[in-house]
Amino acid sequence: MDSFAARLAAAIRRCKTPVLVGLDPRFESLPELLTTGLQKTNPVEVAGAYEAFCKDVIDVVAPLVAAVKPQAAFFEQVGVPGMAALAATIAYARQQGLLVILDGKRNDIGSTATAYADAYLGPPEMSPWGADALTVSPYLGADSLTPFVDVCRDRSSGIFVLVKTSNPGGGLFQDVADVNGPLFLHVARHVETLADASRDAGNYGAVGAVVGATYPEQLAELRDVMPHAWLLVPGYGAQGGTAADVAGAFDREGLGAVVNSARGIIFAHARPEYRDRFAANQWQLAVEAAATEMIASLRDHTPARAL
Amino acid sequence: MDSFAARLAAAIRRCKTPVLVGLDPRFESLPELLTTGLQKTNPVEVAGAYEAFCKDVIDVVAPLVAAVKPQAAFFEQVGVPGMAALAATIAYARQQGLLVILDGKRNDIGSTATAYADAYLGPPEMSPWGADALTVSPYLGADSLTPFVDVCRDRSSGIFVLVKTSNPGGGLFQDVADVNGPLFLHVARHVETLADASRDAGNYGAVGAVVGATYPEQLAELRDVMPHAWLLVPGYGAQGGTAADVAGAFDREGLGAVVNSARGIIFAHARPEYRDRFAANQWQLAVEAAATEMIASLRDHTPARAL
Repeated sequence: MDSFAARLAAAIRRCKTPVLVGLDPRFESLPELLTTGLQKTNPVEVAGAYEAFCKDVIDVVAPLVAAVKPQAAFFEQVGVPGMAALAATIAYARQQGLLVILDGKRNDIGSTATAYADAYLGPPEMSPWGADALTVSPYLGADSLTPFVDVCRDRSSGIFVLVKTSNPGGGLFQDVADVNGPLFLHVARHVETLADASRDAGNYGAVGAVVGATYPEQLAELRDVMPHAWLLVPGYGAQGGTAADVAGAFDREGLGAVVNSARGIIFAHARPEYRDRFAANQWQLAVEAAATEMIASLRDHTPARAL
Repeated sequence: MDSFAARLAAAIRRCKTPVLVGLDPRFESLPELLTTGLQKTNPVEVAGAYEAFCKDVIDVVAPLVAAVKPQAAFFEQVGVPGMAALAATIAYARQQGLLVILDGKRNDIGSTATAYADAYLGPPEMSPWGADALTVSPYLGADSLTPFVDVCRDRSSGIFVLVKTSNPGGGLFQDVADVNGPLFLHVARHVETLADASRDAGNYGAVGAVVGATYPEQLAELRDVMPHAWLLVPGYGAQGGTAADVAGAFDREGLGAVVNSARGIIFAHARPEYRDRFAANQWQLAVEAAATEMIASLRDHTPARAL
């Protein structure tokens, strides 16, 4: 199997877009059609709705984009049935040809980090959850990341390490600075070292970085600091990031970054501009319209036009 | 229901020990009796063995200690059946009167952090997993912790924020220092603010800190910096920490800290000093002996003697 970095680049070239669709199911935001008659307090019913919804979204976006990013928290919120829905969602996305970046922000030390990597990364025959990549938190340091890198190498998988996040309070610790710069730059330099060491023939390695879209200048700066790391850019759309804001994340070929939108795409049926255009049973057309619009916007305003 | 801090203090006083038993099931380390004839590649069989093992350990330690700490990663490694075993383990521990601190090192931003808190914290009627407390990673900053604090208040639960970890590579980012001190001190001060603001009549709040036993001086320093935070101290035993090393974590009443040991207790049957003393079918007696020994050691060498 090709490396995760190579598979991601190939899929983005094929789709001609770096759009990543976030799968963040929330019961109260699902299209009414999918929740009518269901009890919010019944985890089996909620998990069933999440799985059906995610599969319906995947059907729409699989021909359009390279990858999806399920948010683990929303599935974990529904207990064991929710975890079964997560597993089914990941498996279905893979079957439809999508890469799956699981947003779990996991990490621990030593053999426990290995357990997380072993749990989530790799093809279904090697891993119970079977994601292509996982988001990882860096706080625990160097030896918490090494076990993930080892599993990535053995299973052609990837990780995205939190570097600079898009939330207003993210700076409290990420901006603590010594003479070598703020913490997020320390993390970025370590990510670059791991990315460079883990790449094969291509430009990018198995270790990427999460960098929020709400910090456009830092995005370009961090692109320069991590020339061999794929960037996962959240914060587009609902969180305020625009296509112009994320332009700095790409290399000249339009590669090197994936830009995530969740609510703006998957719950497009509730957006003012689509609410009147599509009937309740046409919510998947709203998803398609929102994804297409984001693809066009990134093509118009970023180096993704070169894809 | 009393606050988590009050319930933890009461349970520690009742048991007269701050020992926390880590539930870290690993297939190859389980007593042979529990794995004979099982396939390591069959997740249903492995998950069944984990659940049986954890329940057997709980039966032994429930009369001896206040709390257990299941390590989520090892259950996640077994896929959906593993998550069912985790839920069953947590429920059983509660039924046996133990407090449950789930070691998941979760976090995210905003409503996603709320989803994690909602998933894991609270009594079974409010939360699908039903833990009393959860370990949380601080990298995402202030607004990633607030949602947990809110849920802790509403559900009499607690969190333990990673501050200074026990692994050799932990310093890479945790020791990055500005004029106000290293990152871990920044995190510690924020934890203290949240702990102080979340306490009721007692001395300790809903927000605690994870501080490794392999840094004895820092442990005492961090006890001073966070006078209102429960400390969760990993690294005892197998990771090299001794009773003397953790002495600084306690207040004068012997409260304020829980000291975790996992392998040293749950896999005591494999320790050289117990291997010959107990037959294979007496592995629970080895667990009991190891727990009793740790309880005695902390009583002899730390302020826990005041309990």
